[in-house]
Parts: sequence; C-alpha cells; structure tokens
Amino acid sequence: MAKHQEAPTDRVRVRRLHERGQYDAASIYAILDAMPMCSVGYVFDGQPYVTPTMQWREGDRVFWHGSSASRMLRTTAETEACLTVSILDGFVLARSGFHHSTNYRSVMILGRATQVTDPDEKAARLKTFVDGLFPGRWDSLRGATDQEMKATTVLSMPIDEASAKVRTGQPIDDEPDYALPIWAGVLPVETRVLPPEPDPRNLADVAMPGHVTDFKMG
Amino acid sequence: MAKHQEAPTDRVRVRRLHERGQYDAASIYAILDAMPMCSVGYVFDGQPYVTPTMQWREGDRVFWHGSSASRMLRTTAETEACLTVSILDGFVLARSGFHHSTNYRSVMILGRATQVTDPDEKAARLKTFVDGLFPGRWDSLRGATDQEMKATTVLSMPIDEASAKVRTGQPIDDEPDYALPIWAGVLPVETRVLPPEPDPRNLADVAMPGHVTDFKMG
Repeated sequence: MAKHQEAPTDRVRVRRLHERGQYDAASIYAILDAMPMCSVGYVFDGQPYVTPTMQWREGDRVFWHGSSASRMLRTTAETEACLTVSILDGFVLARSGFHHSTNYRSVMILGRATQVTDPDEKAARLKTFVDGLFPGRWDSLRGATDQEMKATTVLSMPIDEASAKVRTGQPIDDEPDYALPIWAGVLPVETRVLPPEPDPRNLADVAMPGHVTDFKMG
Repeated sequence: MAKHQEAPTDRVRVRRLHERGQYDAASIYAILDAMPMCSVGYVFDGQPYVTPTMQWREGDRVFWHGSSASRMLRTTAETEACLTVSILDGFVLARSGFHHSTNYRSVMILGRATQVTDPDEKAARLKTFVDGLFPGRWDSLRGATDQEMKATTVLSMPIDEASAKVRTGQPIDDEPDYALPIWAGVLPVETRVLPPEPDPRNLADVAMPGHVTDFKMG
C-alpha cells in the first residue's frame, strides 16, 4: 500500500478525535500482526452482520478463511466488506465521566474481497496462516485432502482503503478538574497466552514443539 | 428476553458448527458482561462499517454511547445494526490444518437501536455504565455539564434477536489422525488487567479507590 500520511479516502478518515488517526502502512500492519482475531462486517438482505473470525496478512493484503458453506464467506466474496481489528489496551479513568476513555489500537479496512481459487495458491495461503502463528507447523501436519481444500474458502482483500485509530496514555481532563481530589489513571489490559494444555490423546513420545513452547501472539 | 433454547429468528441461528450455538439469556448475558468492548456493524451509503466501541447491559437491553457527532451513532440510531462481542480464549492445535481452530465466546445481536433522549434517563444510563465497571465512581466525579450531556449520544437495543457461539476444549481430529505423532493441544489466551498506573497529575493526598484496586473485568 501507499505510505499514506493522510486518509486514502474520505470513507476511512478518522473523524471523531481525528488526532488518533494513522494511515501509514507500518502502523496498520503492526496492529493487524498483533491480533489475529478480527470482525468482518457485511450486508446480507439489507441487514449488517459482524462475524468474528481470524485474519492474517501477507504483504499488502489481508486474508481470512472458513467453511465454503459459510454465509459470511459467500457474502463477503461478492459484496463490499469491512474488516476491523481492535485491541483493548486499558481503561482510562478521568476526573469527569465525560473524559473517561479506553486505550486501544484498531484498524478498519474497507474493500471487496476476492476468493483464492487456485488450489496450490490456496494451500500456500493457509500454510502462511498456520506458519505465521506457529512457525514450521504446516509441514508437520497430516496433509490436507482435496475434500478439505474444497470445503475451505480463502478470501483476500487489499489493505488499501484502511485506517488505524490508536489511543494511549493518561486521561486528558479539563484543566480546572486537575485541582479536584479525584483519583485518575489507567488500568492497563493485556491479552496474554497461558501455558499450553496438551491434548490427553497425544502419543506418549510426542514432544511439545518449539512453535508451542515459544509461542507469542503478534 | 425469552428463555430461548432455539434461535429466536432464522437470522441469528448459528449455521456453521451449529452445536456451538446458544440462545438462552444466561449464556448471552454472561458473554456481554465479561467483555465491555464490542463491534457495532452498520451500513452507510451501501458500505458496511464495523466500529469498535464499549457496550454495557441493563437487564434485557444493551447500550453503547459516544459523541453525538459520530457517524456510527447517528447511523445506528436510524437503521438496522449488529452488535457483536467476541472473546478469544485460545488457539486449538490439531493434527491436521483443517481441524485447527480457536476457543472463543461470541454474541451477536441484531436490531434497531433507539436513542436515550431524556436527560435524566441518559445520565442514569451513563452512571450504570461507569458504576458497572467501577462501583461507586460516578458520584465521586466532577458532575456532567449540560453541554457534555448534549454532546453525548446513548443508544440502546433490545437483546432479543441474539445468539451466542462458544467453542471450548481440545481439538476434535479425524479418528485415524490420533495415531499420528503430532503434538496437539490448546494454547489458552487470557485478557487480564495489570496493576493501575496513577495519573502523575493526581493530587498527593488522593488515595487509590477500591473500585481501582479491586477492579475485575466481567
């Protein structure tokens, strides 16, 4: 994507609290790479739907996947979609209710998704998804069958019409309110990974791989 | 809301992996109460948008708020909306790529939002929001001005046409694959609150209140 410093289109320009808007690729990619869970918005029969799913990025495109029978995937393959990633980083407690806020990082991408139809390309994209989270895992797995590949739809959208919105730090109160005896501050929120829980049905001599012991989100 | 055991409408029936669908109020409320961050989907000029914001619940209604100038709030006050909450609980590593999954809890609510216009009612709803997170905080704050109240829109939607979708536990592999020497298991993910960071501009004699020291999400 272009190294935008301004909003690439008016539709993704951050309007409310516009100083929180970021349009450069590095800022947008960093948020996408930090949180695989996303929300895909689409319209079906006039009704907006927001479906949580997993996304991954390759270069200047974002991908998601699922069952070929999924309404979300069938609909977003044909119409305008919105993919949003949001990470809650903290609660911001101010001296007035009005200035309470949250710290967060979010990205919104608008566009039309296209389906990855070539079977080899589809397998390559899924490998990138799995290995992006768990390096080297794809080749250690039982290989995908033709039927599994047919039952899986992979969609892709350019990260082109996109914006990030980020808030960090302490509350910004009205200047006179700083004289009030009210506790203000931040309650940071963290999303973290806990120790692995091996499947009880694992074979006795199967060691925990490095992509599990060393797993980090983002 | 009714104590649905089946989907209240076809639009919110969980189709894919339907055994993960839950329609009873207790299951839906528990997920809404566990995670204040949500994604609001709406359509503007034919384009779906997904905007992260905070939600809170009072009885059988869900609320969200923001600037009265917000496009999301102005649009969702007039058209069909979708409010989705999703919590990532873990990565599920299977013996085939196809059976990899995530553990999660999500809720989707469809409906039309209405604006809380009465000033006293609006203040009462905002108090419930703040005190729901931080018990007793509202009355300790500098009171809201008329201008702040006018600049704030509060929306509400019945939790009526709603469904939850939940996955827990270990991977479900194809039976023959359990014989393969591949590590499988779950990498649990947790959203947690870290120690408070007081605003450096707090007055010296202001103690950290109990609603901060004892804060828990959900």
